[in-house]
Amino acid sequence: MQDLQWNKFLIPYEQAVEELKVKLKGIRNELRATSEYSPIEFVTGRVKKVSSILEKAKRYGFSPDEIEEKVEDIAGIRIMCQFLDDIYKVRELIRQRDGKDLYIVYEKDYIKNKKDSGYQSYHVIIKYPVQSAFGEKEILAEIQIRTLAMNFWATIEHSLNYKYKENIPENIKERLKIAAEAAQRLDMEMWQIRDEIINAQTLFETKSNT
Amino acid sequence: MQDLQWNKFLIPYEQAVEELKVKLKGIRNELRATSEYSPIEFVTGRVKKVSSILEKAKRYGFSPDEIEEKVEDIAGIRIMCQFLDDIYKVRELIRQRDGKDLYIVYEKDYIKNKKDSGYQSYHVIIKYPVQSAFGEKEILAEIQIRTLAMNFWATIEHSLNYKYKENIPENIKERLKIAAEAAQRLDMEMWQIRDEIINAQTLFETKSNT
Amino acid sequence: MQDLQWNKFLIPYEQAVEELKVKLKGIRNELRATSEYSPIEFVTGRVKKVSSILEKAKRYGFSPDEIEEKVEDIAGIRIMCQFLDDIYKVRELIRQRDGKDLYIVYEKDYIKNKKDSGYQSYHVIIKYPVQSAFGEKEILAEIQIRTLAMNFWATIEHSLNYKYKENIPENIKERLKIAAEAAQRLDMEMWQIRDEIINAQTLFETKSNT
Amino acid sequence: MQDLQWNKFLIPYEQAVEELKVKLKGIRNELRATSEYSPIEFVTGRVKKVSSILEKAKRYGFSPDEIEEKVEDIAGIRIMCQFLDDIYKVRELIRQRDGKDLYIVYEKDYIKNKKDSGYQSYHVIIKYPVQSAFGEKEILAEIQIRTLAMNFWATIEHSLNYKYKENIPENIKERLKIAAEAAQRLDMEMWQIRDEIINAQTLFETKSNT
Repeated sequence: MQDLQWNKFLIPYEQAVEELKVKLKGIRNELRATSEYSPIEFVTGRVKKVSSILEKAKRYGFSPDEIEEKVEDIAGIRIMCQFLDDIYKVRELIRQRDGKDLYIVYEKDYIKNKKDSGYQSYHVIIKYPVQSAFGEKEILAEIQIRTLAMNFWATIEHSLNYKYKENIPENIKERLKIAAEAAQRLDMEMWQIRDEIINAQTLFETKSNT
Repeated sequence: MQDLQWNKFLIPYEQAVEELKVKLKGIRNELRATSEYSPIEFVTGRVKKVSSILEKAKRYGFSPDEIEEKVEDIAGIRIMCQFLDDIYKVRELIRQRDGKDLYIVYEKDYIKNKKDSGYQSYHVIIKYPVQSAFGEKEILAEIQIRTLAMNFWATIEHSLNYKYKENIPENIKERLKIAAEAAQRLDMEMWQIRDEIINAQTLFETKSNT
Repeated sequence: MQDLQWNKFLIPYEQAVEELKVKLKGIRNELRATSEYSPIEFVTGRVKKVSSILEKAKRYGFSPDEIEEKVEDIAGIRIMCQFLDDIYKVRELIRQRDGKDLYIVYEKDYIKNKKDSGYQSYHVIIKYPVQSAFGEKEILAEIQIRTLAMNFWATIEHSLNYKYKENIPENIKERLKIAAEAAQRLDMEMWQIRDEIINAQTLFETKSNT
Repeated sequence: MQDLQWNKFLIPYEQAVEELKVKLKGIRNELRATSEYSPIEFVTGRVKKVSSILEKAKRYGFSPDEIEEKVEDIAGIRIMCQFLDDIYKVRELIRQRDGKDLYIVYEKDYIKNKKDSGYQSYHVIIKYPVQSAFGEKEILAEIQIRTLAMNFWATIEHSLNYKYKENIPENIKERLKIAAEAAQRLDMEMWQIRDEIINAQTLFETKSNT
């Protein structure tokens, strides 16, 4: 890919993002239409900017030819959940499609294994076939699954990393970790409310049956 | 399908329409981004209303159980083209995908074989697999390919058929045929302009090369 | 406007186009929701490209300072109608808003006074106040009202003008005029169908009352 | 409004929601396009369901005739902010438009005066004039401004209120209050990070100037 024509190169990634957004939003609509709880709250997607792709390639020492197979998040999808355990339900919904309209390459659980920075999310790297006017092309895409609180934290961290060019000062790093804990506490509290509710319902249903 | 739960029944059709719209619009965007001419001007889609499905089933004598496999246009996609010959280019783009993300069942050329009413369009009936939260489901969809002038005419005819419940009075039928011819003349005129342009270009390029 | 910061300059125009599209589509939705006929079939909008603004300014001899008040179609809205007489109904709907959320500057009837090229449309030039983060700004916008057939023709002419840089060869100009007549004939045929329908209805209603 | 034709009644509210969404998203786009920080993260809107309007009218003892002037949140807009102090910046942006395209009726600060339940948000009730095909109509709308954490909490509380029909059990109410505190702590942490950053910048700029 000596003469990288970026515009053309990115077209199948843009197409993949559009299709995956429609497909994942479809699951949410489907579950809501059948009055079932949807573990998907909302879905966003983006194609990485050329400058960010080049920066990442440089940071990891990838040659231009390797970008396509080594930069896994050129096409990025983000799925937001209300509750912690929804994340694993969404993972199952993606695993169900494996071998059908997408192919899972690998998964990374940054929730059970939180990053040092405080970052939490569940990542699924997939291969996704795109039909173009010039034939089929298989591209890599990264699906990030997270709660709203995790997403909030990650948005702030992302803009700080952008601002400080990956060199966030130590005192702010510390503050970020404290904020990550506050986000985690919020998720735990919400999860407990949910448990309480489910217990309350079971109790109620048991009683009603007697 | 005794107890037809329409809401649930229609979900995969709605999903198919959304996905096909994104895919076909993607072709247009792709061609325009690479500065190539796009034979697709715009794409619309709709799911047939329950009342219209039932009416069609009744008219053709389909039992409720047969609706799924016999009513082929519950999911409907319409592709509009600027020029007559674009229709056949779009057909090729769809044939290219056959066996990949869709399966062509059959085609009907109502351009070479205009209907008595004056109706013109190219129809492709496809099978399309939808991934849902409860597994894969293959549905039928109808893709209609037409010029803007054909579409204009068909829109009017459709609303008249709706108004007169398929019994359009003879004098209006006659007028519709005259209008269909006017639409066809417009398409022919436009096509000739296009030929003129292509000839002009070829002439120019030949001259430049000497 | 010596140092024309285009990006910033165009923001209120983009905002105006978005707002006007929502407002005019709203009229269509409102009429359809109340089961009344909508003279508006669909609405599109665009902001003129910087290169086209500069070209127009050059062609007419406007200085950069004059662009804002003399290039009237930087913000452009296009309203498509099914029938010829719908155009004048849409004009009335716009006139109703005059002095409320928009101000009509002047109108041009290129239907009664067709251009030499064959171009037909009804133009309304308005002033539209946009509220921005930095206060109110009043901009000019052009609303074009046309039938689907007129729009079809105009799209082709526009791309030819673009291709030939406003110097369309004579033979193609002649063909375009013939095509414009074919488009006009289609509009006339459709209009007559409509009349026929309205007469049929009146007859029917008169009979039912006896 | 004896014979409340709901469909027709709600049209101007739907139109108002669409217009206000476009206008408020416009502010965000404008600020981002000029590389300024946008206090608006995202905007959503909805029209209250008929069943919820009737329920609210019943709860407060409003007669059907009073619905229009007393149910202030039939048209609802929600603006989400990243940081606590953004809320007051958004309020200023709305106040700037007062008397132009909207009219502020009153404001309620549920951040400085948190509700007993734990609910936090800033509310602005406005009058908004909608131009319809049948003339101008002024409607009431409620704009809620909150942080992402407040919104997360409020979404859960709303679905619990819906589930328990406004009678949330005491133990779940207690848990909700704890969760509200966790959300508030997260907002406070984030705010401090922001302060730290601003201080860091000021320090940096002061040093650079010497």
